[in-house]
Amino acid sequence: MSMLPYDERLGALFSTAAQVFARKGYHATTMRDLSRESGMSLAGMYHYVEGKEDLLFQIQQRCFAGVLVGAEGALAAHTRPDERLRAFVRHHLAFFAAQPAEMKVLSHEADSLTGQRAEEIRRLKRRYADLLEAVVREADGGDPTVGAYALFGMMNWTYTWFRPDGRLSPDGLAEAFAALFLHGVRGDGGARTPPARPR
Amino acid sequence: MSMLPYDERLGALFSTAAQVFARKGYHATTMRDLSRESGMSLAGMYHYVEGKEDLLFQIQQRCFAGVLVGAEGALAAHTRPDERLRAFVRHHLAFFAAQPAEMKVLSHEADSLTGQRAEEIRRLKRRYADLLEAVVREADGGDPTVGAYALFGMMNWTYTWFRPDGRLSPDGLAEAFAALFLHGVRGDGGARTPPARPR
Repeated sequence: MSMLPYDERLGALFSTAAQVFARKGYHATTMRDLSRESGMSLAGMYHYVEGKEDLLFQIQQRCFAGVLVGAEGALAAHTRPDERLRAFVRHHLAFFAAQPAEMKVLSHEADSLTGQRAEEIRRLKRRYADLLEAVVREADGGDPTVGAYALFGMMNWTYTWFRPDGRLSPDGLAEAFAALFLHGVRGDGGARTPPARPR
Repeated sequence: MSMLPYDERLGALFSTAAQVFARKGYHATTMRDLSRESGMSLAGMYHYVEGKEDLLFQIQQRCFAGVLVGAEGALAAHTRPDERLRAFVRHHLAFFAAQPAEMKVLSHEADSLTGQRAEEIRRLKRRYADLLEAVVREADGGDPTVGAYALFGMMNWTYTWFRPDGRLSPDGLAEAFAALFLHGVRGDGGARTPPARPR
């Protein structure tokens, strides 16, 4: 790995660390475990990060900053409120379908950071939640806080059950969720878009 | 605690263990930690459970068996499909609003059990998910698998943001979720039931 350029070594470390945190949990993981699994020496790791909490912070920061910028880009391509809602959902699911370990780490280790680092992540999460609340409000979504968190729940829970290589693609699921959110299961199509799985 | 009868001592141990698992994570918790926090001796704990994994198993088993039996009871009181859906959502949210630590442990430690114990919990979860899928199917809910997991997502994600003593009660939230699920945010009321929070 020492032949990789700086950014790739760092990216590989983040990716390995996210997988180990997702599997064992942050608190049960040591820097020594991460060194073993990444093939990077402890000294090498401390060249990039101050320690385990800094590593968790940087993983979370990259993800939230990335999903926020990506969502803003996805939204900018649309003007109709329902299309903006669909674009947000599609982007969120695609972003995390490509990073399932990070998704699990963001969910499970939301309370593991402390002090300034926790504060910084809370700020990024707040901006991302505010963005969805604004989209829900545009879409005439009743209570935008309840609506936004209902939608985050649908989307984020997918890490427990959804397989991106299964019957339904992330985009197909995004379509089903957006239709369900806008029109309900009794509405004009609702969650009906994908065919029922044979039982 | 030694003056409590058997069932209460066991219940207190489960409750303490769920709180410690929720706070520190299962893998990072030792039986010694649980002994310290529960005030029960290690020997006393081993009188009730075979070890840490058995304790996690029994917590999960109690919860899933309890929520399953409770949901069946809640459903039995209703015949109209939309009322049965509302009753399921209301019961699920009330059940876990009373046990937030257990809710977090069920979510975060879903993969921490092994062998027979994992199999038994998978069976209970499958029965519970099948029950909701059947309710969604009755309610004419398009793809019942996508619908059921969208609804589980809305409901289970609440442990990350919902405060039962806040502006909205668990029953109020259940009503908002069921309305959203049945009719969407653009439907006949949708998530509109609770008033918008002033910003």
